[in-house]
Amino acid sequence: MTEANETPLAVFKGMNDRYNGIIVSSDMEKCDSDEFSIKLQESLKQWIEKNRRGIWFKVFLNQSHWVPHLITNGFKYHHAREEYVMLYRWLPEGETCNIPPYAHTSIGVGSVVVNDNNEILVVSEKYRFFEHWKLPGGYVEPGENLIDAAVREVMEETGIKTEFLSLLSFRHAHGGIFDCSDMYVVVALKALTTDLKKCDRELADCAWMNINEYLAHPQVHELNRLFVEKYLEYKNHNLKIRCDHGIHSKLNKEYMVYHVVKENL
Amino acid sequence: MTEANETPLAVFKGMNDRYNGIIVSSDMEKCDSDEFSIKLQESLKQWIEKNRRGIWFKVFLNQSHWVPHLITNGFKYHHAREEYVMLYRWLPEGETCNIPPYAHTSIGVGSVVVNDNNEILVVSEKYRFFEHWKLPGGYVEPGENLIDAAVREVMEETGIKTEFLSLLSFRHAHGGIFDCSDMYVVVALKALTTDLKKCDRELADCAWMNINEYLAHPQVHELNRLFVEKYLEYKNHNLKIRCDHGIHSKLNKEYMVYHVVKENL
Repeated sequence: MTEANETPLAVFKGMNDRYNGIIVSSDMEKCDSDEFSIKLQESLKQWIEKNRRGIWFKVFLNQSHWVPHLITNGFKYHHAREEYVMLYRWLPEGETCNIPPYAHTSIGVGSVVVNDNNEILVVSEKYRFFEHWKLPGGYVEPGENLIDAAVREVMEETGIKTEFLSLLSFRHAHGGIFDCSDMYVVVALKALTTDLKKCDRELADCAWMNINEYLAHPQVHELNRLFVEKYLEYKNHNLKIRCDHGIHSKLNKEYMVYHVVKENL
Repeated sequence: MTEANETPLAVFKGMNDRYNGIIVSSDMEKCDSDEFSIKLQESLKQWIEKNRRGIWFKVFLNQSHWVPHLITNGFKYHHAREEYVMLYRWLPEGETCNIPPYAHTSIGVGSVVVNDNNEILVVSEKYRFFEHWKLPGGYVEPGENLIDAAVREVMEETGIKTEFLSLLSFRHAHGGIFDCSDMYVVVALKALTTDLKKCDRELADCAWMNINEYLAHPQVHELNRLFVEKYLEYKNHNLKIRCDHGIHSKLNKEYMVYHVVKENL
């Protein structure tokens, strides 16, 4: 029998997660390319012995040489942000991996903006799939609230200042940009100004159009027609989807909650 | 002067996108590690000369040795799926990068399920932040519709078969799992069966609880109380958020659209 090696081999420390997993971050534990593979294999050996479950490696841009070694050792990608990629390996052999997939839904907003002359604010895009008059709108930014995104997009695209009235509807579909699902949330906004300032980078045109003309226009898509009908129902029957701001009493975290209210039900 | 090299250097072909960008996929154009760097640099030179805009590299697991070279040449991560990572570089110097970020919102569903005895279906989780009786639910799978997810989660967690009645509310917040935003969509479902089969993997408990007892229970969160109040409003006033299935007339793509309807407005 050979003597056991008394010097413990270097392993990654990482951080524990609450599911008996480990998260190693490349900015916390630097490791050169020539040492990485041995250190990883020794770490995996110990983690398997200790019945660890999900193992995560968060690899920042300047340690990207870790990536091929991780993949050789059975890791797969989970998600990426601009500055890092997150890889994972599920260790338990007899247990199905219960790590949820990353976000796979893009959120966009569109706005029904009507002025005091019963005219609706409409735009025509520069880069479009088909020619039509659509509602001003765009993607919600990371960390942005839906109403803030709607108000911002209307301002950026048309120069019109607005405020929130009601949520009207949302549309959910699959196979969108980057092969994600997408949710398109439509709100009613009140126009506070009237002078149009078109965004030349994104738009071919923008205009105030009589709302009845819009509803009858051949170049208006069926869903946009539905959204405008919902606006008229909201207005005529005071049937509103309100947005309330709250703070979660246990998690101390802000939220926005959307729900129907009809005054004088 | 030295003679110009007459042999054209190898460049990546890629595919054109509709914004004058190029997408190179590692499964379409294999390239060994020792050739990759030179081929990439020659490609970038030509793309810059031709005023190309966003350059994308979709790198599958078995070509992951491309990743460190791409990063050395100014690429950043955009997103990743289990089998590939997508890197990009924006070439125009005088123009702001207009590539949208990847999806950053996780979608979950919760269900208000009430039986004929005026009892609500409630669950208590095994791995929880704080002790409370919550609504059955979970994450929406990639490509899944919201109602299908709600019905599936109720079945998986409690064994109860259900069908859709109305959407009730949704909550939007930031700083959730994987540092994404999250949207929690709550629907009312009709119970078609009554016998509980608890999912032991996820739940500590599940039960039918009298709806008034639930509304007054100290271990019920304020938002869940609101969702149940919205259920009662829906039921008592026939104030429904319907879900309609449609097919986009121009894109020939399925969608689900959610909107308020009140019979006999």
